[in-house]
Amino acid sequence: MPDNTNNFTPQTPPSGGRGAYLHVCLTPALIPLFKVEDYIVVVIDIFRATTSICYGIDNGAEAIIPVSQVEECLAYQEIHPEYLLAAERNGEVVSGFDFGNSPFSYTKEKVNGKTVVLTTTNGTHALHLSRNAKKIVIGSFLNLTTVCDWLKDQHENVLLVCSGWKNNFNLEDTLFAGAVTDQLKGNFRIDDAAIAANDLFEIAKDDLSGYLAKTSHSERLKQLGIEKDIAFCLNVDLTTAIPVLDGERLVKL
Amino acid sequence: MPDNTNNFTPQTPPSGGRGAYLHVCLTPALIPLFKVEDYIVVVIDIFRATTSICYGIDNGAEAIIPVSQVEECLAYQEIHPEYLLAAERNGEVVSGFDFGNSPFSYTKEKVNGKTVVLTTTNGTHALHLSRNAKKIVIGSFLNLTTVCDWLKDQHENVLLVCSGWKNNFNLEDTLFAGAVTDQLKGNFRIDDAAIAANDLFEIAKDDLSGYLAKTSHSERLKQLGIEKDIAFCLNVDLTTAIPVLDGERLVKL
Repeated sequence: MPDNTNNFTPQTPPSGGRGAYLHVCLTPALIPLFKVEDYIVVVIDIFRATTSICYGIDNGAEAIIPVSQVEECLAYQEIHPEYLLAAERNGEVVSGFDFGNSPFSYTKEKVNGKTVVLTTTNGTHALHLSRNAKKIVIGSFLNLTTVCDWLKDQHENVLLVCSGWKNNFNLEDTLFAGAVTDQLKGNFRIDDAAIAANDLFEIAKDDLSGYLAKTSHSERLKQLGIEKDIAFCLNVDLTTAIPVLDGERLVKL
Repeated sequence: MPDNTNNFTPQTPPSGGRGAYLHVCLTPALIPLFKVEDYIVVVIDIFRATTSICYGIDNGAEAIIPVSQVEECLAYQEIHPEYLLAAERNGEVVSGFDFGNSPFSYTKEKVNGKTVVLTTTNGTHALHLSRNAKKIVIGSFLNLTTVCDWLKDQHENVLLVCSGWKNNFNLEDTLFAGAVTDQLKGNFRIDDAAIAANDLFEIAKDDLSGYLAKTSHSERLKQLGIEKDIAFCLNVDLTTAIPVLDGERLVKL
C-alpha cells in the first residue's frame, strides 16, 4: 500500500443565508477538515470550561481569558495584578490561584466586573484551532436556547466544535451539539455528525445526567469529587449571555 | 492564546485478556490518538469497499489487494497480467478495468481463485494508517457475527476503525461499529465513541436502510445510481470469511 499521508479535505460551504450548513466537529483533531473562515464557530467544553465561562460572563465578568498553561496564567498576573487566576490540575485548584474550573467559582460575588484568566487545556486547544472563524462564541447547556436563537438570526454557516478530551471524542460535548442541532435543524443543512449528535441527544435528553453516568469522562470527574459541578453543567437555559471571542478575551456579545 | 499544535495523546490499553478494551476510531484522522500496535484493528468501509472485500474473499478470491490510486492498480497488472483490476471514479468503472467497487462484481463466478487489485481511497487510507496493528481484519455487515465471535476469542484489545469519507465522520461505518460493540460489550471495556456507536445502532437496527437514507453519503451514492449496492451492503451475516491483511494482500483468515 502507498505511503499516503493524511488527506484532509476542507469542506467549502455556501456563502450563508438560507440553506446554510450546520456541521459538527466531533473533536478538535478534526477541525482541519473544515474551512473555519466560512463558519461561525461554537466552542463546546461542557465539563466544565465553557459552562464556567457562560456562567461567569452572565454574572458580569468583564472578560474571561482562556489559556492552556498555568505559566501563561501567571504571566498575565504580572502585568495585571488585579486579574483573577483560575487553574486546576487533576481537579484541584493550583496552589496560589484564586480558584479552579468549578462553575461555582464564577458567581456574581466573585467575578462581577472582574477579568478572569482561566486555564483549560481542551477548550483552549479548540479555540485556538478555530481562531480564523468568522466569529467564535461559547456554548453550554446554560445558554443553549439563547445561542440557538442568535445563530438562527445570523444566516451564516455554523460549526459546532466539541473540545473533547485530549482530542478524543466525548459524549457530553456531542450531546450539547445534538441539542443545538435539535433546535436548528429546520433552518440549516446538516451533516452526518449532526444527525448522530441529534439522535444521541434524543436518547439522552430526558435524563442527561443518567445517560452520561456511563461515560468514561464522567467517571473520571466523579473520582475527582465534583459531582455537584457535573450536575450544574447540565442545567438547561439558566443564563442568557453569549460569550464571544474578541482578540484573546471572551466578552459578552 | 498560545500557538499550541495538535497534542495527540495515544491511549495505552492493558495488555489484553479479560478487561481488554474495545475502542472506536470514528475517522482515520483520529487513528494517531491510538497506539495501534496494542490492538487488533477492524477496518470498516461499509459503502462499499469492505463489503466487497468480505464478499469476494468469501467467494473464493485468492487475495484482494487494496490500493488508493488507479495508477498503482495498473502497475500491479504490468507484473501480474492475470490479476483482475477494480477501479471506480465517481461511481463509474474506469475505462479498461475489469470492474468497479460494486459488491455484485465479487461473485464466485468472477473472483474464485483470482487475485483482485481494488482501488479504494478511504479504505486504503484507513488500512495504511493502521499498518502497525497486531493484526488487521476487514469487517462489514456481511460477516458481522463471524468477526465478533472471532474477536471474542482473541483476548486482545480491539480498535474499530471507521474509514469515513475523506476523513469525515460517516454514519454507515459508525453503525457497523455500533453493531460490533453490541455483540462485544459484555466482554470488553468500551469508550465513549463505542457507547455512541452502539446507541446509534440501537436506533437504526430495525431499519438500517431507512435510517441511512437521511445521510449525506447515502444521498451521494443514490445519485450515482447504486441503490442496489447500498441495499446489499446492509445484509447481515451473509458470509463467514474474515479477510486479514498479510503484507499488502487481504486473504482469508
